Amino acid sequence: MARGDRHAAGGPRGVTRETDPAARVPDSRIHGDLAVVGAAEAATRIPDDATMLVSGFGSVGYPKAVPKALADAAAVGGDDEGEDAGRDLSLSVVSGGSVGEEIDEALVEADAIDRRYPFQAREAINAAINDGRVAFADRHISSLGDDVRFGGMVETDGSVAVVEAVAVGPDWLIPSTSVGLTDAFVEAADSLIVEVNHDQPLSLAAFHDVYRTGTPPEREPIPLTSPDERIGGPRIEFEPEKLAAVVETTGRDAPYEFRDPTDVDLEIADRLGDFLEREVERSSLYDDSMRIQFGVGSLGNALMGALGDADLGDRDLIYYGEVLQDGLLDLLDTGELRSASATSLALSTEGQERLFEDAERYAEDVVIRTGNVSNGPALIDRFGVVAVNSAVEVDLYGHVNSTNLGGSRMISGVGGSGDFTRNAPLSVVALGSTAAGGDISKIVPKASHVDHTEHDVDVVITEHGVADLRGTSPRERAEALVECAHPDYREDLRAYLDRAGEGGGHEPVDLDTAFDWTDRA
Amino acid sequence: MARGDRHAAGGPRGVTRETDPAARVPDSRIHGDLAVVGAAEAATRIPDDATMLVSGFGSVGYPKAVPKALADAAAVGGDDEGEDAGRDLSLSVVSGGSVGEEIDEALVEADAIDRRYPFQAREAINAAINDGRVAFADRHISSLGDDVRFGGMVETDGSVAVVEAVAVGPDWLIPSTSVGLTDAFVEAADSLIVEVNHDQPLSLAAFHDVYRTGTPPEREPIPLTSPDERIGGPRIEFEPEKLAAVVETTGRDAPYEFRDPTDVDLEIADRLGDFLEREVERSSLYDDSMRIQFGVGSLGNALMGALGDADLGDRDLIYYGEVLQDGLLDLLDTGELRSASATSLALSTEGQERLFEDAERYAEDVVIRTGNVSNGPALIDRFGVVAVNSAVEVDLYGHVNSTNLGGSRMISGVGGSGDFTRNAPLSVVALGSTAAGGDISKIVPKASHVDHTEHDVDVVITEHGVADLRGTSPRERAEALVECAHPDYREDLRAYLDRAGEGGGHEPVDLDTAFDWTDRA
Repeated sequence: MARGDRHAAGGPRGVTRETDPAARVPDSRIHGDLAVVGAAEAATRIPDDATMLVSGFGSVGYPKAVPKALADAAAVGGDDEGEDAGRDLSLSVVSGGSVGEEIDEALVEADAIDRRYPFQAREAINAAINDGRVAFADRHISSLGDDVRFGGMVETDGSVAVVEAVAVGPDWLIPSTSVGLTDAFVEAADSLIVEVNHDQPLSLAAFHDVYRTGTPPEREPIPLTSPDERIGGPRIEFEPEKLAAVVETTGRDAPYEFRDPTDVDLEIADRLGDFLEREVERSSLYDDSMRIQFGVGSLGNALMGALGDADLGDRDLIYYGEVLQDGLLDLLDTGELRSASATSLALSTEGQERLFEDAERYAEDVVIRTGNVSNGPALIDRFGVVAVNSAVEVDLYGHVNSTNLGGSRMISGVGGSGDFTRNAPLSVVALGSTAAGGDISKIVPKASHVDHTEHDVDVVITEHGVADLRGTSPRERAEALVECAHPDYREDLRAYLDRAGEGGGHEPVDLDTAFDWTDRA
Repeated sequence: MARGDRHAAGGPRGVTRETDPAARVPDSRIHGDLAVVGAAEAATRIPDDATMLVSGFGSVGYPKAVPKALADAAAVGGDDEGEDAGRDLSLSVVSGGSVGEEIDEALVEADAIDRRYPFQAREAINAAINDGRVAFADRHISSLGDDVRFGGMVETDGSVAVVEAVAVGPDWLIPSTSVGLTDAFVEAADSLIVEVNHDQPLSLAAFHDVYRTGTPPEREPIPLTSPDERIGGPRIEFEPEKLAAVVETTGRDAPYEFRDPTDVDLEIADRLGDFLEREVERSSLYDDSMRIQFGVGSLGNALMGALGDADLGDRDLIYYGEVLQDGLLDLLDTGELRSASATSLALSTEGQERLFEDAERYAEDVVIRTGNVSNGPALIDRFGVVAVNSAVEVDLYGHVNSTNLGGSRMISGVGGSGDFTRNAPLSVVALGSTAAGGDISKIVPKASHVDHTEHDVDVVITEHGVADLRGTSPRERAEALVECAHPDYREDLRAYLDRAGEGGGHEPVDLDTAFDWTDRA
């Protein structure tokens, strides 16, 4: 059924929409009698050793001008110590997800960042983390807002939230291309600097649904009853006295670049589709619809795109995930996807154009939420989401490494992968069986770092097979996972299992050779 | 303030209790026109290869007579294959938590169990699991009911629920000393055998609060607004045609045996108390009360007991955990604990006597819930529970092994430790710094098995120190955790860190020597 048809038919949607999308869009950018300052001036209002809580998720919707001005201020005079010395910054930078070069490159090169949480995806910050120059800790997205609000993670005294917005008023702002954890940051921060970006369309407001959870122990359940429902509005509210500066900016987010799907991607997508076809027949959880999440990246994007080919009967397909990628726009356009819930719009240039040109129409079916709702453990459970995430490596017992190459070299962070893998009633890990052109097996004897345990991973899919691990013992899992490995590695994996088996135990391991394959470089 | 006083004063409790505890207690055991059969007859109604879903949690409240009769039937004629041969059983046995000798010893010795989920605590079953004779998988308690109900884990066609009850009617039963996952099992099973145990007091009904969650995607939030609220009643309901047999039995649960607290236990308890005193000053989450969970076992019991000594101001102390142990009864008696929520009454003989003699009074403040509520991720989050769990070992980056000695030899299972460690806003791992009389360090270079990751563990406490890991990088964590190790091991741990550091990376590891300490036996 085509998308327009379904709307016209007024089929069962179980949703109450508060308003027309257009009603959520303000008519101008700066409301009330707010003084605007330059980015350089705003940057002076951030203490040298501040905790800087920045908007941004999926490398979009982050502040650009003020971080750049901070980097410039730090760089003035280079390493001079005299009057010409730049500012000696030692910032703790917290974002919801990944951000752009103005933060994770310019500020890093200016040696301005001491601490960075909880996710990053740029070479400069990554190198600094792996060199030990920047102290980094990755955290689950769903709980990051609480980590910041209720303390223990960062010092919030003297902290400054720096937020990109499409519009601002005396006590509210409307975020741009991502909502992420910005609401929690604005609440936790002592002061607030808003970048109003004239190149981000005002119509982005139509997508946003901001919801602030209460404080335990009186915290209420998040009142969302359906993946496409709205429970808030586009505005993040704040105490007016927090507003330290408003800056006007221009410049779009750097677009995502997706590679074309490889043969391996397509084979994995086929196997996933076949598996899901069987699963909807087996389980009552999918009688009317399938709610699904895909991890961020080219494989995830390819899997989304291919999902339209699976024969899921007349079930509605609903995305309940973290990031809206191009593959989902395609499915929305064809009507194969009923709705999408995420916290960020991580699109290619073409995807951005498509979405921005027709924002109010897409906003009928796309909700951009706060990260504790997009990734909410209780919601993933209640909606019965099928989680599909990729990984660095999976071991023979189903433990998954999502973060650290060789056990030690951080890639990006655990992000939302744990939120979905842990709380979904069906958790799939989908990955190519090899890396480095076949030189590295991603099915390994023992994961060199564990982000998701055997207790949380239900199914592993590679281009060579589907291992359904549910209800299996570790020894059974190992047999199934060997069949998912590239044929070149199966004999060695079996030899490992033989050695491990000599020691016996519920989950046989040979600790002396478990990491023989792991790259030490 | 003494317990009686607080009740008399009618202080703020924020609780609506449906009824007087006595009103929940039935006046007789067997209601309606139910035929009673012997255990041997009931056992014939369980297919040889059935999935048997048994009540029981914390080694209490499990069926005794029917499993024993099954074991006897399997043992008849020993290994003979002729007419005298016993039944050739190949059962899949699923319990909520640990159960007693009639299941995890007698049935194991009769070679009647092929598969066993998700937790066990007896030598016979444990040996069979580690020998590979029984296929075992441990699962989180909070999601086990869904694992069984919605399939993928066990075959439920032809499955039989075998449940110990204090009373039964044509379409309901009241569980005995644990609620666990029994309600989910009764719903999922094709048929039901009820053991009505005359030695389990009818007054146990006063404690129980059974709540069944709906089916995703229409699942509602669990409507509990306070840790001591009641949202259900004592009865587990079922379709009357499921009832295959009612058996009358006698015999109490084997009591828990707690060792006396050691000096190490007491030192850990002191450090925990000091830490919590600082934390309640620091965080707004504990302005009025502290909600806390302790893992099951002698250390957990000792920590509970010692908590009465901590100076938490006039805050109410509330237990929101999995198992009610003796230490909590003491705190209830002194009035230091306002209420306790759990899914099982795992008490010593003396504790059982104390509770049973005064059940209706204790039931004013003690609720025994279904396991998906006692361990509910959303509730642990909403109530802001402080989780305190022990472990086999903790590594220098905060990864925790709770289940497998030497990476391979299963102890009991992950149980509820992941539910609490993952979802609590403050997760403490408390453990002695050494095992085996000091021969083994429990602070290790790299965990040989990971059940809880660095993303979930906030604080580690040993008798030697408190490592507050929140907001720290892996390198910083390692420094803090070395100080928690026994002094005899610190130099070697530092030497390991030096070797690991040579390889660099965010989380430096030396994979060649990471397990040099791990017992290979």
